[in-house]
Amino acid sequence: MFKNILQDIVEQSGGGISSAVMGYDGIAIDQYEKPCEGIDLQLIAVEYANVLKEVKRTVEILETGDMEEVAIRTERFTVLIRALTDEYFVTLTLGRNGNFGKARYMLAKESFRLREALA
Amino acid sequence: MFKNILQDIVEQSGGGISSAVMGYDGIAIDQYEKPCEGIDLQLIAVEYANVLKEVKRTVEILETGDMEEVAIRTERFTVLIRALTDEYFVTLTLGRNGNFGKARYMLAKESFRLREALA
Repeated sequence: MFKNILQDIVEQSGGGISSAVMGYDGIAIDQYEKPCEGIDLQLIAVEYANVLKEVKRTVEILETGDMEEVAIRTERFTVLIRALTDEYFVTLTLGRNGNFGKARYMLAKESFRLREALA
Repeated sequence: MFKNILQDIVEQSGGGISSAVMGYDGIAIDQYEKPCEGIDLQLIAVEYANVLKEVKRTVEILETGDMEEVAIRTERFTVLIRALTDEYFVTLTLGRNGNFGKARYMLAKESFRLREALA
């Protein structure tokens, strides 16, 4: 049920490589990826879950309202992360020349469908 | 020397509230902020330094190239963070209705001046 939505996110985002719905424990519920050499999606999942946990903790301490979105840009990729519920979030990995604005829009838009699927 | 650049970043970013150059130890070299109630900039600095350390560690494990930029959006603020050197980074906090695209552009542009000032 998640796969179709994740595929839409990747295919329509402009430069999307992979997308996953996962828990803060680093375990993915479902994922969709384009073939891309040299990416260990499972490792990425676990590591970004750790980052997200740290961000979530920080945001709670600072009392600046719920965490909505995190973007991490490195030399090779941009990873967009959007909180879905208290337990789950969605990630979208873009290649270096991905369309950041369009990807953010797609992720925000499809979050509603993902939340419905989670409910 | 940093203050003028940080002021430029805040004033010209469109919705900017505060900006700081700080180390991964959470100690700010310099900062500039508009008066804004209910923000403890020192606490924010230390907490975001912890987040950045976690992101940096993750990016190194995943070998996806150097960390360049991190954006964290919550209900009340968006915090943009850009790596300057191995030891220092710059932050820009935007209000809820800040111009994200312009802020990213300003931070990228002024990073060069900040790196020069750090050298």
